[in-house]
Amino acid sequence: KINGDRLWDSLMEMAKIGPGVAGGNNRQTLTDEDGEGRKLFQKWCEGAGCTMGVDSMGNMFARREGTDPDALPVYVGSHLDTQPTGGKYDGVLGVLAGLELVRSLNDMNVKTRHPIVITNWTNEEGTRFAPAMLASGVFAGVLEEDWAKDRVDAEGKRFGDELKRIGWEGDEPVGQRKMHAMFEYHIEQGPILEAEDKLIGVVTHGQGLRWVECTVTGKGQHTGSTPMYMRKNAGRGLAQITELVHEIAMQHQPNAVGAIGHIDVYPNSRNIIPEKVVFTVDFRSHFLDIMQGMVDEMMEKAPGICKELGLEFSAEVVGQFDPPAFDEKCVSAVRNAAERLGYSHMDIVSGAGHDACWINKVAPTAMIMCPCVDGLSHNEAEEISKEWATAGADVLMHAVVETAEI
Amino acid sequence: KINGDRLWDSLMEMAKIGPGVAGGNNRQTLTDEDGEGRKLFQKWCEGAGCTMGVDSMGNMFARREGTDPDALPVYVGSHLDTQPTGGKYDGVLGVLAGLELVRSLNDMNVKTRHPIVITNWTNEEGTRFAPAMLASGVFAGVLEEDWAKDRVDAEGKRFGDELKRIGWEGDEPVGQRKMHAMFEYHIEQGPILEAEDKLIGVVTHGQGLRWVECTVTGKGQHTGSTPMYMRKNAGRGLAQITELVHEIAMQHQPNAVGAIGHIDVYPNSRNIIPEKVVFTVDFRSHFLDIMQGMVDEMMEKAPGICKELGLEFSAEVVGQFDPPAFDEKCVSAVRNAAERLGYSHMDIVSGAGHDACWINKVAPTAMIMCPCVDGLSHNEAEEISKEWATAGADVLMHAVVETAEI
Ligand SMILES: NC(=O)NCCC(=O)O
Ligand SMILES: NC(=O)NCCC(=O)O
Repeated sequence: KINGDRLWDSLMEMAKIGPGVAGGNNRQTLTDEDGEGRKLFQKWCEGAGCTMGVDSMGNMFARREGTDPDALPVYVGSHLDTQPTGGKYDGVLGVLAGLELVRSLNDMNVKTRHPIVITNWTNEEGTRFAPAMLASGVFAGVLEEDWAKDRVDAEGKRFGDELKRIGWEGDEPVGQRKMHAMFEYHIEQGPILEAEDKLIGVVTHGQGLRWVECTVTGKGQHTGSTPMYMRKNAGRGLAQITELVHEIAMQHQPNAVGAIGHIDVYPNSRNIIPEKVVFTVDFRSHFLDIMQGMVDEMMEKAPGICKELGLEFSAEVVGQFDPPAFDEKCVSAVRNAAERLGYSHMDIVSGAGHDACWINKVAPTAMIMCPCVDGLSHNEAEEISKEWATAGADVLMHAVVETAEI
Repeated sequence: KINGDRLWDSLMEMAKIGPGVAGGNNRQTLTDEDGEGRKLFQKWCEGAGCTMGVDSMGNMFARREGTDPDALPVYVGSHLDTQPTGGKYDGVLGVLAGLELVRSLNDMNVKTRHPIVITNWTNEEGTRFAPAMLASGVFAGVLEEDWAKDRVDAEGKRFGDELKRIGWEGDEPVGQRKMHAMFEYHIEQGPILEAEDKLIGVVTHGQGLRWVECTVTGKGQHTGSTPMYMRKNAGRGLAQITELVHEIAMQHQPNAVGAIGHIDVYPNSRNIIPEKVVFTVDFRSHFLDIMQGMVDEMMEKAPGICKELGLEFSAEVVGQFDPPAFDEKCVSAVRNAAERLGYSHMDIVSGAGHDACWINKVAPTAMIMCPCVDGLSHNEAEEISKEWATAGADVLMHAVVETAEI
C-alpha cells in the first residue's frame, strides 16, 4: 500500500501554489503559477530518483528505470493545471499519486521490469486555451502541434509564446514515446460513487464531447433611444439558444448533458444593446450518435431562432472527442487490483474528458476514479477524503505494478 | 450663424483622441484619453478668451464674461466622455458647439449681458462607473459626492482615485454655481427626426430610467460529469429574465423600452456551469408609472423564475432618474430660434438620459437635438452630417443669445 499521509501532504503543498479565493486553486495552464507548480513537481520527482524529460508541448515525463532495458515504460499521470476556480484534486491527484507510488516502491525497494514514467500533461482544462486535453491530443497525433501552439487565450496570447515565456518548452519531439500501457487516476467529478457508496470507480468508457463556439451578431444600439421594433438584440439570441441547448440535452438524459459555460458579451455596456455574444455550447454523451444528434439539432434550430430575431448566427467546433472505450486488459488490471485490496468498486463511465481519452488511441489505457463530495468539481469547494485518495492510489499502484511486472 | 466648418474641424480633431476600432471613439471617463481630451478642450477655451474652472467632480466650466457683473451665467454644454464603442458626436457635439458659439460671438464682436459658461460634465455615459450622468447628478444635489467618488469600475478602481490620477480633480466645491439657464445640444440617438425629415428636435420631455443590477447565483459545476437533474445553471436564469424584460417592455411600447446590455458570467469557463451571472436591466419610459410598473413586474417575477431553476436572485437599483419636463421658457427659446432661422423642427421626447435632466432640477433648462443616421448611437458607426450639426449649433447660439441678452 502507498503512504496516504505523504500523498495528502504533497497535495496540500502543491495547493499552496496559485491559491484560489475560496479554498481551491487558480493555477491555469502556462501562467507563472503553472510554472511554479511544475518546478515543485520536478524537484519531487528528482528527489525520488527519476529523470525528467520535457517535450515541445511542455508535457513532463519523470522516469524511474526498470530492470529490463528493452521493456517499454508504463505511464501514470494526469495534469497539474486547474480551472480559474478549480479544486485541489482535479488532475493533481493523478499526478501526485504517480509520484507517491514511485516513492512507495523506492521505500519497499521494489524494482519493476518495465520503467515507470510519471506524466504531467499540459493544458488539460482547456479554459485558458480551448480545446481541453490539448497537449495529450498532440501527443496522440489527433491534433497538430503548430495548430495547438497557435491557440490564443482571451487576451490574444498564443499558447506557443506562453509556453516559452514560462520556460517549459522542452526539446523532445511530441509523441515519439512508445508506451507499454498508461493509467490515469482522477477524482470522479460526479455524484455516482458517493451515492453508491463505492471507493473505486473502474472506468470502462467515457463520454464524448463537442464544444461549439457560437457567435450571434446583432446591432449595438442605444438602450434608451432605440424603439423596440428597431432592435437587433444579440442577448436575446443567447437567451433562446441557452434554453434550446437545455431542452435538447433533457430529451436524452440520463445519456447526455448540455450547457453553456462561456459567454462574452460585446460591448458589454449597461446602455448598449448587445451587438455580439460569443459563447461555447458543451454537449456530451457516451453514445456517439446522441452526441452528434444534439449538435445537429442545435445547428439546425439556432440559425432560425436568430433569423427570427434579426440576428446573424455562426458556429465553429473548437473541441471534440468521441466516446472512448478503454483497454480491456488495463481495465481488468484496475478491477483486479480493487478486488485484491478488498476495496468496494463498480464499473463507471467518465463524465468528463481526460488525457487518458487521447492516449487510449496510441496505447493500452485505463482509468481509476475515487469519489468526490456531492459530485462537485470545477469549483473551489471540490472535496475528497484522505481515505478516498489513498484507496485509489493503492489501486493505481497495484495495477501499475501488475502491468510493469516485478 | 455659427461657423459650421470650424465646428466640424474641432469635432474631427477631438475624435483623434481615444480612437475606436471601427471609426468611432473609446474615450471612456477618467481614462488617460479622457484627460487628453480635457486638455485639448481647455486649450481651445482659453484660446477663445475663456477662463477655466474645475470642480471637485472634474466638471469643467469655461467662462466668457458678460457685460453685467451681477448677471448669472447662461450655461451650455454636454460631455466629452464616450462609450467603449462610442461615436464621435454623442456628447462631444454639445460641448464643441458651445465652444463654437463663443468663437462666433468673438468673431462678430458680440457681448452678452449674462456671462456664458461652456461645460464638460464628467462621466455622463455611465459605462465605466454606474450610474450615468454621475457628476451632473452631484452638481444638482441628487447624488452625494462621497458616494459618487466611491463608485468602482469593473477592475475595482474608484472614481475618486481615477479622477485624481488623471489630474482633473478641481478645487471648486460642486454645485455652488448658480445658473440663469442651461442649454444642452445633443444628437437625437434615435430615428424620429430623420424619419420625419426635421433638422431640429425641440426637446420638451425626457424618458426616465431605472438600472437594476441583478445577481443570479447557482452552482459552479462540471459541464460533463454533473447529471442534468443536479444542475443549478445561473445562465438559465439570465436567459429567462432576458426574455421577461423584453416581454414586459413590449407590453408598453411605444411608451417604454427595456433590455439587458451588461452581462458578466462567473467563472466563465467552457466546462463550468455558470455559478453566477451579474447583469443590469435598463427600463425606460417617459411615464413614471409605466417605468415603475415595469420594474415592479420584473422584481415580482424574476425571483420565482430563479426559484424554479434552483437559483438565488438579488437586485439593486444602480441608476435612476424620473422623466424630466424641461423649462417652458427655455424650450420656447429653442423653438423660436428654429423658427427664426427657418429650420424645420418638431417637439420631441429624449429617449436617452442627459446631464440636462439633472440640471433641470436646479436651473431653467432645455435641450436641442439634431438627427443622426438610422437613429444609431452608442456605436462606432454613429453618423451625422455637417449640415445637421451646423443647424443645431445655430439654434443653440440663437437660444443662448436670446437668453443671455445682448
Ligand atoms: N477532467 C476534466 O475536468 N477535464 C477537462 C475537460 C472536460 O471538460 O471534460
Ligand atoms: N445620452 C446618453 O447616451 N447618455 C447616457 C445615459 C443613458 O444611457 O441614457
